[in-house]
Amino acid sequence: MNCFDTALDLQPAGDGRLRGRTMPEWANMVGPFGGITAATLLRAVELQPDRHGRPIALTVNYLAPIVDGDFMISARAVKTNRSNQHWILQLSQDDDVKTSATAVFGLRRDTWSATEIVPPPAPRPEEITRSRPPFGLVWFDNYDMRFVDGAFPAPEEGGSEVSTTTLWVRDNPPRPMDFAALTAVCDIFYPRVYLRLGRALPAGTVTMTIYFHADEPEIRSQGDDFVLATARAHRFSGGYLDQTAQPWGRSGALLATTHQFVYFKG
Amino acid sequence: MNCFDTALDLQPAGDGRLRGRTMPEWANMVGPFGGITAATLLRAVELQPDRHGRPIALTVNYLAPIVDGDFMISARAVKTNRSNQHWILQLSQDDDVKTSATAVFGLRRDTWSATEIVPPPAPRPEEITRSRPPFGLVWFDNYDMRFVDGAFPAPEEGGSEVSTTTLWVRDNPPRPMDFAALTAVCDIFYPRVYLRLGRALPAGTVTMTIYFHADEPEIRSQGDDFVLATARAHRFSGGYLDQTAQPWGRSGALLATTHQFVYFKG
Repeated sequence: MNCFDTALDLQPAGDGRLRGRTMPEWANMVGPFGGITAATLLRAVELQPDRHGRPIALTVNYLAPIVDGDFMISARAVKTNRSNQHWILQLSQDDDVKTSATAVFGLRRDTWSATEIVPPPAPRPEEITRSRPPFGLVWFDNYDMRFVDGAFPAPEEGGSEVSTTTLWVRDNPPRPMDFAALTAVCDIFYPRVYLRLGRALPAGTVTMTIYFHADEPEIRSQGDDFVLATARAHRFSGGYLDQTAQPWGRSGALLATTHQFVYFKG
Repeated sequence: MNCFDTALDLQPAGDGRLRGRTMPEWANMVGPFGGITAATLLRAVELQPDRHGRPIALTVNYLAPIVDGDFMISARAVKTNRSNQHWILQLSQDDDVKTSATAVFGLRRDTWSATEIVPPPAPRPEEITRSRPPFGLVWFDNYDMRFVDGAFPAPEEGGSEVSTTTLWVRDNPPRPMDFAALTAVCDIFYPRVYLRLGRALPAGTVTMTIYFHADEPEIRSQGDDFVLATARAHRFSGGYLDQTAQPWGRSGALLATTHQFVYFKG
């Protein structure tokens, strides 16, 4: 089993609760990679027997570091409407809440459609060398990252005037895309303040939101191909920065728009 | 009392719960203006005796229409850290949950700061005539709106190629800005699909997130002046559209960044 699927392998524990455990393969600086936690919470809804429709939106709040070991996820459908369903989730360890989330699932209907923005210019991923991020974090090995712009700053480079990073990314080993994998990719970016200041410093996502634009067939049609992901910040102040990002399919489909607020020190 | 403050006048009802009621002055097409609901939820945390710090981030999920009358808000601090605090909120009527929310409150610290984007070009609000939106909605009268770009489409105008709306807006009658007022302004925009298609159609916010960049002194320094608010969508498909918006102070301060996912039919 791909280590992404292993991390999302949850066991029913009664009352809509699901039991999981951290995987050493997903270790980040403190606790697991935030993207795998978000994907696990999304999967926890997908596994509910009374789940109505597919993911529409997800907000994940990172309350405290998840420690190595077991965790319990509680998922509660607070409201089921005709076309959508609202969930509240908590991930706990020893009854201590580490992550909270709200999710909207629902049906989509054929409507007028348009995309107003275009993907950033980028050479094909096959023309770019795979990057080995310098921070020595275990979870990076679960992705094939090929930076187009705004790669991890080297010590001699110094800061950057803008916080934009663009990269091609796919699971390593390759794995067909689904909503959970797209969720994890939405958190693929290192903190934007590293790029602006040209160095790593203490930073972590406080809250992340994803709006899923792609429906299930569009996500399935991505197969195990690379996604072009681009992110930037708008304002840094008072120890917080906002990040806005878009993952694009190779064919130019805007798969999701995602936003997060990140704490930093320095 | 300004009708904004009247709407946010909540009575303690024990166990961190607060009782409120809808105000006819804030009526929208169905239920109250979403911005006043979001502001009321933020205020519900501000009123808690164990609240730690000031607003950092807020996500509000609109589950079902609020009907005219009383409502009850429950607010629970799920985690209090040294520098921040995470809340889960529910607004109910007769034990039926109508709105859910998560909020992050916290302390800010002096750090490196920068703003990467600039406000859209706009003449001064004094040079623009106040708009009277054509939909006949009661709550519009609580704002002085002066459109710079992307005003409500007139029937003869037809659709627009881009979904950008920019306007100067302030409370009517004027009222000093606070976090709650800024929260409401984040939802000031009519649905972006109206602008693209040149007509009103059934639409409503499903979920909205706000990242507060301004600290309390910066918000207080806005006084009762106009805010320059700009919004756009990125993709419309499957009955959903995402909206990204920024409220700017007249001096060029990016007060917040805010995002929402909106349901539409048509």
